[in-house]
Amino acid sequence: MPLQEHMRLISVDDHVVEHPQVWTDRLPAALRERGPRVIDAKDGMLDLNGKPLRSGSQAWMFDDKIFPTIALNAVAGKAHEDYSWEPYRFEDVRRGCWDPVARLADFDQDGIYGSLAFPTFPGFAGAKFITLTQDRELALACVQAYNDFMLDEWCAADPDRFIPMVILPLWDVEASVKEVKRTAAKGAKALSVPDSPAPLGLPSYYTDHWDPLLAVVEEAGLPLCKHFGTSGTSRSSRQVSPETPETVMISLAGCLSMFALADLLQSPVLHKFPRLKVAMSEGGIGWIPYLLERMDHVWARHRHYETNVNQTVSPSELFQRNVWGCFIDDEIGIKLRHDIGLSRITWECDYPHSDTNWPNARAAAAKQLQDVPDDEVHQIVELNARTLLNLPAPVVAR
Amino acid sequence: MPLQEHMRLISVDDHVVEHPQVWTDRLPAALRERGPRVIDAKDGMLDLNGKPLRSGSQAWMFDDKIFPTIALNAVAGKAHEDYSWEPYRFEDVRRGCWDPVARLADFDQDGIYGSLAFPTFPGFAGAKFITLTQDRELALACVQAYNDFMLDEWCAADPDRFIPMVILPLWDVEASVKEVKRTAAKGAKALSVPDSPAPLGLPSYYTDHWDPLLAVVEEAGLPLCKHFGTSGTSRSSRQVSPETPETVMISLAGCLSMFALADLLQSPVLHKFPRLKVAMSEGGIGWIPYLLERMDHVWARHRHYETNVNQTVSPSELFQRNVWGCFIDDEIGIKLRHDIGLSRITWECDYPHSDTNWPNARAAAAKQLQDVPDDEVHQIVELNARTLLNLPAPVVAR
Repeated sequence: MPLQEHMRLISVDDHVVEHPQVWTDRLPAALRERGPRVIDAKDGMLDLNGKPLRSGSQAWMFDDKIFPTIALNAVAGKAHEDYSWEPYRFEDVRRGCWDPVARLADFDQDGIYGSLAFPTFPGFAGAKFITLTQDRELALACVQAYNDFMLDEWCAADPDRFIPMVILPLWDVEASVKEVKRTAAKGAKALSVPDSPAPLGLPSYYTDHWDPLLAVVEEAGLPLCKHFGTSGTSRSSRQVSPETPETVMISLAGCLSMFALADLLQSPVLHKFPRLKVAMSEGGIGWIPYLLERMDHVWARHRHYETNVNQTVSPSELFQRNVWGCFIDDEIGIKLRHDIGLSRITWECDYPHSDTNWPNARAAAAKQLQDVPDDEVHQIVELNARTLLNLPAPVVAR
Repeated sequence: MPLQEHMRLISVDDHVVEHPQVWTDRLPAALRERGPRVIDAKDGMLDLNGKPLRSGSQAWMFDDKIFPTIALNAVAGKAHEDYSWEPYRFEDVRRGCWDPVARLADFDQDGIYGSLAFPTFPGFAGAKFITLTQDRELALACVQAYNDFMLDEWCAADPDRFIPMVILPLWDVEASVKEVKRTAAKGAKALSVPDSPAPLGLPSYYTDHWDPLLAVVEEAGLPLCKHFGTSGTSRSSRQVSPETPETVMISLAGCLSMFALADLLQSPVLHKFPRLKVAMSEGGIGWIPYLLERMDHVWARHRHYETNVNQTVSPSELFQRNVWGCFIDDEIGIKLRHDIGLSRITWECDYPHSDTNWPNARAAAAKQLQDVPDDEVHQIVELNARTLLNLPAPVVAR
């Protein structure tokens, strides 16, 4: 069996569902009433888009706006037939969504060792704090409260297995530099950033705006994790037409990562910061060889009239040096692993989201990797993640 | 050599650049002054987006709006270093762009036999006539004039080698049915339609709006050709940020086809019309196995709460029965040809656009196919296109 007992699965994409006290426990008294807090939905309440809340469900309130909870963000353990977008109450979702000790027990049951978790309420890269309030004092306090929760509470439940990832106050480069230094000193191992800054209204990678931050990030060796859908470009199928099923846009989520990767690899970023590490989170990997071939093709033909494109190094060369991808179910990606680059592939569980295979994630990985040589399997499920995240070498006990 | 002399290359995606008299020659006198006609750009003239025209270039005028010509749409024979977006004059582009006899000579020079060509000024699927005028009498006359040009002039230059494809007055289903019947009687072999109707503001595939048209199309056996970028969803890089190079969005053109394919395969269309033929034009093929795997995965998990998704047939099954893809340069796609389905793959030249390999298109195809068995090569470059387009069996002269 290529996936063997001594190989420890490290998931580079899971999700923490913040419990109701994450911000109320940490924000200063003056900000607490405007920071994120959980309320009970009542008849007549409308969310920030004017849609009625489901009475009896819980919702988040932040700076006078109401955000419904979304059950699809917390479906671990449910049958596929029971998947739903409906809002929920915390007591109705699996405890491992929001309790780190229960999460570890769930991981133990499935033979999963390590886990890197993205935020839920703030957005996977904290974009809500960037785009939904102009109150920068409040926003900065919310970012720091989330990061302290991640470092001091979630990961403290098992510092060897939970890998701390933090978010940044990206409306302010100087404040972001400070937050990188503050959290790195407390043990942060990764940064969750929007998959592309420009669509959020922030300066693009084709400016020098981000250079002071990227210099510090490169020096600290912390990977930038770019979860798909974090730059505000994702659309609901219902925005295409009222009848278009959500399955259409869910099946196209990888296109968001394709945009983010094309945006990054054609920018000056990896030329200016050649040791920067970038993880494309949850986008799948089966499309990567196609896109690299296509980007190199376009680079060969069209770079001549675009002075802001590097004229000597092709996009695929940068990918092989600086970027990692990850997969859950991706038979084509595994088949193409040498076209992607064996050192570029990591594994993810996506607990507790709808793509997860938990509680059968280890079995699903073993099945997909059954025809792959043992050493390659070890690299894919564990060793590449250790390189990406600067984790210690594995304890091999055969 | 797997690509042999007797195998005739049939390109399922080329582009005709309409000469200046296409509409003025054909529109009734009362409409001629509002139909498309070519003007000389002069200082101070602005295009429909308010951008100044390049003095000395030529532009199209239609219903009081001015549209610049785009040199990237007519670069056949230019060095990559000379590619440009700048507007042009007809005498400055290669004659094969707009003259069918010159086009045949160019094809002869490169060993290309057959060609299916999309319109340029009307939009690849005629969307300009759908979205840019409310004058339906004018729009219908423009659609019919283009179709008559394609049937009576362009393809008449060699009816065996030019394969007539027409556009439809899609704002009116009944008028579209009539135009299918009218043009099929004159020899039309294919229909160019938007890659998805909903983003153009037309009813989606999830309604029964299109059923009368699709029933006639299925009965006639004419393929629907869906060129990427024809539903109005393509964005310029400059819309992402002013500094983002065009190479970014050009390299992502395949994502437009991914959307179109996901939209179609999850809709009721191919369940209601099981013999309908659909060609995904110019989107490449290397991404198809990834997307089929992803769609089936999402279908397995998320169809239960979407009543407008067929609950028993997966998207990939429909692809294998009803859809064709095509490629120009796509080593990954060729490698994955059995995952795509050998019968699903066709070849394209893309003359005279920037992706074309002309005048070395046959050599480029031969190189990509050098490790593919002879019979598979013949299927890919010629036989599948004959099946798709209902062309006669090949004259094999070995």
